[in-house]
Amino acid sequence: MKMKAVVKRKRELGAELEEVDVPTPQKKEVLVKVLATSICGTDAHIYEWNEWAQSRIRNLPHIMGHEFAGEVVEVGSNVERLKVGDYISCETHIPCNQCVPCLSGQRHLCSNLKIVGVDINGSFAEYVSIPEEVAWKNDKSIPPEIASIQEPLGNAIYATTVTDITGRSVVIFGDGPIGLFSTAVARLSGASKIILVGLIDFRLEMAKSLGADLVLNAKKEKVVECIMDLTGGTGADVVIEMAGANEAIKNGLEVVRKGGVFVAFGIPPSSVTIDYNNQIIFKGITIYGINGREMYRTWLKTSSWLKEGKLKISSVITHKFKLEDFEKGFRLMLHPENSAKIVLFP
Amino acid sequence: MKMKAVVKRKRELGAELEEVDVPTPQKKEVLVKVLATSICGTDAHIYEWNEWAQSRIRNLPHIMGHEFAGEVVEVGSNVERLKVGDYISCETHIPCNQCVPCLSGQRHLCSNLKIVGVDINGSFAEYVSIPEEVAWKNDKSIPPEIASIQEPLGNAIYATTVTDITGRSVVIFGDGPIGLFSTAVARLSGASKIILVGLIDFRLEMAKSLGADLVLNAKKEKVVECIMDLTGGTGADVVIEMAGANEAIKNGLEVVRKGGVFVAFGIPPSSVTIDYNNQIIFKGITIYGINGREMYRTWLKTSSWLKEGKLKISSVITHKFKLEDFEKGFRLMLHPENSAKIVLFP
Amino acid sequence: MKMKAVVKRKRELGAELEEVDVPTPQKKEVLVKVLATSICGTDAHIYEWNEWAQSRIRNLPHIMGHEFAGEVVEVGSNVERLKVGDYISCETHIPCNQCVPCLSGQRHLCSNLKIVGVDINGSFAEYVSIPEEVAWKNDKSIPPEIASIQEPLGNAIYATTVTDITGRSVVIFGDGPIGLFSTAVARLSGASKIILVGLIDFRLEMAKSLGADLVLNAKKEKVVECIMDLTGGTGADVVIEMAGANEAIKNGLEVVRKGGVFVAFGIPPSSVTIDYNNQIIFKGITIYGINGREMYRTWLKTSSWLKEGKLKISSVITHKFKLEDFEKGFRLMLHPENSAKIVLFP
Amino acid sequence: MKMKAVVKRKRELGAELEEVDVPTPQKKEVLVKVLATSICGTDAHIYEWNEWAQSRIRNLPHIMGHEFAGEVVEVGSNVERLKVGDYISCETHIPCNQCVPCLSGQRHLCSNLKIVGVDINGSFAEYVSIPEEVAWKNDKSIPPEIASIQEPLGNAIYATTVTDITGRSVVIFGDGPIGLFSTAVARLSGASKIILVGLIDFRLEMAKSLGADLVLNAKKEKVVECIMDLTGGTGADVVIEMAGANEAIKNGLEVVRKGGVFVAFGIPPSSVTIDYNNQIIFKGITIYGINGREMYRTWLKTSSWLKEGKLKISSVITHKFKLEDFEKGFRLMLHPENSAKIVLFP
Repeated sequence: MKMKAVVKRKRELGAELEEVDVPTPQKKEVLVKVLATSICGTDAHIYEWNEWAQSRIRNLPHIMGHEFAGEVVEVGSNVERLKVGDYISCETHIPCNQCVPCLSGQRHLCSNLKIVGVDINGSFAEYVSIPEEVAWKNDKSIPPEIASIQEPLGNAIYATTVTDITGRSVVIFGDGPIGLFSTAVARLSGASKIILVGLIDFRLEMAKSLGADLVLNAKKEKVVECIMDLTGGTGADVVIEMAGANEAIKNGLEVVRKGGVFVAFGIPPSSVTIDYNNQIIFKGITIYGINGREMYRTWLKTSSWLKEGKLKISSVITHKFKLEDFEKGFRLMLHPENSAKIVLFP
Repeated sequence: MKMKAVVKRKRELGAELEEVDVPTPQKKEVLVKVLATSICGTDAHIYEWNEWAQSRIRNLPHIMGHEFAGEVVEVGSNVERLKVGDYISCETHIPCNQCVPCLSGQRHLCSNLKIVGVDINGSFAEYVSIPEEVAWKNDKSIPPEIASIQEPLGNAIYATTVTDITGRSVVIFGDGPIGLFSTAVARLSGASKIILVGLIDFRLEMAKSLGADLVLNAKKEKVVECIMDLTGGTGADVVIEMAGANEAIKNGLEVVRKGGVFVAFGIPPSSVTIDYNNQIIFKGITIYGINGREMYRTWLKTSSWLKEGKLKISSVITHKFKLEDFEKGFRLMLHPENSAKIVLFP
Repeated sequence: MKMKAVVKRKRELGAELEEVDVPTPQKKEVLVKVLATSICGTDAHIYEWNEWAQSRIRNLPHIMGHEFAGEVVEVGSNVERLKVGDYISCETHIPCNQCVPCLSGQRHLCSNLKIVGVDINGSFAEYVSIPEEVAWKNDKSIPPEIASIQEPLGNAIYATTVTDITGRSVVIFGDGPIGLFSTAVARLSGASKIILVGLIDFRLEMAKSLGADLVLNAKKEKVVECIMDLTGGTGADVVIEMAGANEAIKNGLEVVRKGGVFVAFGIPPSSVTIDYNNQIIFKGITIYGINGREMYRTWLKTSSWLKEGKLKISSVITHKFKLEDFEKGFRLMLHPENSAKIVLFP
Repeated sequence: MKMKAVVKRKRELGAELEEVDVPTPQKKEVLVKVLATSICGTDAHIYEWNEWAQSRIRNLPHIMGHEFAGEVVEVGSNVERLKVGDYISCETHIPCNQCVPCLSGQRHLCSNLKIVGVDINGSFAEYVSIPEEVAWKNDKSIPPEIASIQEPLGNAIYATTVTDITGRSVVIFGDGPIGLFSTAVARLSGASKIILVGLIDFRLEMAKSLGADLVLNAKKEKVVECIMDLTGGTGADVVIEMAGANEAIKNGLEVVRKGGVFVAFGIPPSSVTIDYNNQIIFKGITIYGINGREMYRTWLKTSSWLKEGKLKISSVITHKFKLEDFEKGFRLMLHPENSAKIVLFP
């Protein structure tokens, strides 16, 4: 059987819509008919074929995509939990369950991690086959586009609630979709004051509607001075760094208060030089490096909030395209003046 | 100088409005002109002269009251931080700062605790003198009646945020003012589902407006069955017991899920018999006994939320009286069908 | 193929050594040749056929035993990780991996828990078949009798290190094997003072050699007075209740200090009446209900300590018998004046 | 009244023994007769007059020294807790008790911190006057030289027990006195394996006697390779960086395992360039910046362990001199081949 898929075939910018074989699920895999699949920065890197993609993607041709929701249409012979007809989303991190992080309850940090859409074929296609283990059964009340973005939303939820923020001032650096999700999560989770620092006015406005008390455009404002002023000279209780820019990391470490918490999530393009003494030691801060989501504590949180209608983030989805129009989506990813999260529908 | 005060003079029900001397602040005390003072269950116990009051209140005559806000009008000779004109509220727990709990950062659990309005004269008066140490400087934007209830609100905040409730189901037992505050705090702090169990329809309705997703009247509903049903048979992630009734404690331990958290705050009238094996051990739950508020982590949270306008609990104040009319307040405390928090104004 | 096994056949005291069929491993099971298997209190309950056993053990005939170490001799068709020849011990708790506790990282508290030797046939036999998932691969340097007792030792390790005890005073109630293990663990983990309360002089002496600073025989000493005196009137920072006696629970709650921690592990014979106000609320203590061991954080700790030679508990094994002599072991369990842990060798 | 004191008078290397006035205690201060005072790296910096000292020490002449034990000989008029004759040590950090860190229970990170021997005159003298608040009353059984080093020992204790290390592999970078203390603390607190990385063979040998399982001389060994090998390729569960060298920080971040903990304590001479993505984000580590000691949780731990005879670190004191011979001490600090902690006796 054949399906349409977005295939990366050449070691250069771009990708092609092709007809390829529908994958056959392995013994412990389920075959999923993709109902919605959203574009992540990682996909854009592979599309662009930047340095990271060149060193990380081993085999071509390759099908990108890892954020999705869909329906199970076939199950491998050793599949035990799921059935045809189940409505699922996908945890991207496939753990080995045997290494020290896995045995310590940190499967998302598995030493032998495989990633859907990076190490195995992904979801920019009509069908995708994934290990049963990483399939998360959704409540049917959650629409596919929202179910699809649970994965990056989970990043935001894990990063934002890794420390107690009730009654605390929170500064989020980064106005990408995850920074925007994080704003909504911080609002929902009881921050006393939320300041979002970004670069794109369209998104800063969106951040306000998602719950930011104040937004700062780093191109226009003196970020450090403003934040110190807004926090009465104390600095922020919690800084969540989601911009992945060296300047943002530097400023974030500058504005976190003595004894505060710095959440490191964004991936900067190069090494980072830190005023280690004044910003880490003498301040006595705690830094949490965050990658992925807790399996499956974060998924429980995410799905509970969505099912109960408490977390409202659908406005972050600014564009929806047919899978065939994936190029439009990638163009917006590279020029994001008026967009945030983009979802494709096969 | 003389002032009006509500004085407990006899070892029986009741209290009298009297003219008494304005207290003289000791070296480390500040004299506060009371702007608003709210009635706590403890005050009602002293007024009623119940068993607890008989054993706990040592010296009569005694001025009740410990929840208040006011203005500093005189400072003792060794007062260092506060000045005449400062607008303050009061932490009721006066710690020794030298015992093991104090040195461990648990001053609210001081081994040599003194309590304002219990061990020393209190705030149902035009003036009250308190140690500078327990005076909390308020933001002037907070009205006196709200500043006054920060103390019991702090109880609710400490109890409700002692464990992470983001994305979790929370059941609150007790529809007294602190249970109602706790409902608002749980909503603000990201619970996915809030169920409040109480006895008084007026208050259950109020709980809905404060953020409860569901309310149960324990006189009319099968509490355990309902909650197990509403949580898909799993039980609640977190139970916050604020009713102080043996039945509520029993039910609360019954509906907390395996691995869940039980917050013990309400004071039952007698010993409690617990199915220790099935409800504590085999479930592997964690129980937090809560008394008072963290000094001063909780106050920071409380005042940040109030100052930033995030926590809206003014509707819990159902009645306001002049100090002279304190009897009206106590009557409502003992027959609370249509009331919640009551504030007196000297 | 036949094997010897200790079989519970009748609903009365006792068990029989019988020749039965060697079990056939299911698809995801491994067949293990038992090298050593130790007797737990649970086994003694089943042997005695007490109330708990009568209500809990559904099908007879039944093979008891769940603490063991052995060698994998056959693997089911879907076994992936283990191979014939692997040297393993067994986590007794078989989780479903799908319920809320499982998804929350609390698999040992699974809502659908099955227990080896209780819900399925156990290890008092030459061979036992268990799910691959609960097999823990041992370092070959650990002798079988020590590898066997890792399971109850894990109980002690989880209970004793669930809270930070470095530099803290720890009181352990209970001089059974797990109380003795806990003494060694508390010593190794940096308690400043360890007091063990028990009933059997032989074991109290052993506790001293395992690291207790002081031991109290509850038959001879005024336990509460002694402990309050030994802690300068403050009470103990941490109480670990492993006696499972109502008196011990009551005393334990009495001697834990304000703001301290109470670890609830022992299973009392009936409900427990608690002075909830004075012992839980006003003290502001935290109670951890402990059942089982963390999967697999505790196993990592246990095996690291054993492998590195840091945890020395072999003296707790006081008796070793051939499987055929299991009756001798059970007799000692019921009359434990001069014994502690007993290991059987098939 | 006159006393001998080591006075820094000129903005250059060196200090002088002088006769100066005995200080007069302010209202809330106590005058302490110094019985023993130990030399810290900070003192050596001031003696050397390095860049840090030039920018930090505002007023000369100045008396250095902050680690000490002594007897109270006079109390200011508002002193309440201490009496003449009390035997005390000193917490160096003088907090304001009013800023956000102070109110959050992080007084050691006070925004308005004053430091004894840096911001006010110190203890390299016969007498020193300090605020009553930072005086810690010692048990008389602890000898002055040990009581003096409680302050840096507290640093080691806080840094080493800030995360649970029971059953975990710990790598300590730095063989200075605090690294050596930390080794003893890690041993006492249940690490499964302790590796110390240093530069001075004399101290590496000492580390072995204090409990290190393995020591590595960074001048001779390939540190990263060795540690990865010793941890089976996984990396260390916990890295405690106490060398304050850029290379050590880099190596420490390299060898901490995925999901592990990095404790940042040592003060490097300059900014640090970090492979932020691979070492912090993708690994998902937690970093604790540590400065000072918790007031007074750490002091409770330290003094409990010392009083109960559990923590044996007297061997780290390699040299004792009369105060007059302070130059000998400073020379050893700058050429530490055969020394560790040095104590002066006025």
